[in-house]
Amino acid sequence: MKSMEELFHALLQDVYFAEKQLLKALPQMAKKSSDEKLADAFTKHREETQGQIERLEKAFEMIGKKPKGKKCEAILGIIEEGKEVIEEVDDEEVRDAGLIAAAQAAEHYEIARYGTLCAWAKQLGKPQLARLLHQTLEEEKKTDELLTKMADASVNQAAMSA
Amino acid sequence: MKSMEELFHALLQDVYFAEKQLLKALPQMAKKSSDEKLADAFTKHREETQGQIERLEKAFEMIGKKPKGKKCEAILGIIEEGKEVIEEVDDEEVRDAGLIAAAQAAEHYEIARYGTLCAWAKQLGKPQLARLLHQTLEEEKKTDELLTKMADASVNQAAMSA
Repeated sequence: MKSMEELFHALLQDVYFAEKQLLKALPQMAKKSSDEKLADAFTKHREETQGQIERLEKAFEMIGKKPKGKKCEAILGIIEEGKEVIEEVDDEEVRDAGLIAAAQAAEHYEIARYGTLCAWAKQLGKPQLARLLHQTLEEEKKTDELLTKMADASVNQAAMSA
Repeated sequence: MKSMEELFHALLQDVYFAEKQLLKALPQMAKKSSDEKLADAFTKHREETQGQIERLEKAFEMIGKKPKGKKCEAILGIIEEGKEVIEEVDDEEVRDAGLIAAAQAAEHYEIARYGTLCAWAKQLGKPQLARLLHQTLEEEKKTDELLTKMADASVNQAAMSA
């Protein structure tokens, strides 16, 4: 890679792979949540993720490339840690707290990546592309905040009774 | 794992491993930065990371445990992506932009994890422990902001000339 265009394209492929992995992981996280509201939040975020994948496909189109993922070791590691929580935590309310933590690690990965993509798109003179990606960035931040609120309002408290 | 105490301990071990991995990776990131200020920022953050590791050792002590790391697949994946930038980007100014992006992915992983640790420490009735970890959380956020500023002020602009 020698140019910002190529670096941008590579990161877009990384994030496309990451979103597709999360799309596969979220139903399992919903299924393993004992708190009903938490399960709903994961299910709702899965639908949102589907829309984010469509946005990425539009982004590929805007730079004249075909949508294609590139293996992203970071998200695989983050998802692996979420699976460990599911496997290793026996109490279901403690597991809920662990699932929120795992999901927030994934959200923060995406916040970092979309933040970078937005900055690079602007630098590349593509404000429309930057705006498109910024919509997803805002969604990821909101999901992260929602998870913090759920943890503070009930999940962490419930986990303490274990 | 069955209790919040155990889940907290496991996450502390995860972050301890992660910080030690970053301590090893940061000199290489400094060495591969062509922008002198960026190299300085990585070197300074390495020193800060050393202090963060000492804080984690104090946190282990506060919960009556010995400091010990637990393999963290997430940070290994994030560091792996940083290495790919170093190996795959031929232009040194484009590489600087990629190094900032990789470092911000690591910072966001830590922001997520320390945020969770702070919330859990409070829930466990350990405000002193929460305050200790909050100091690191603030440092990570500041480092992330500094990297954004460096990218916006000069690095991304310089990378465009490639």
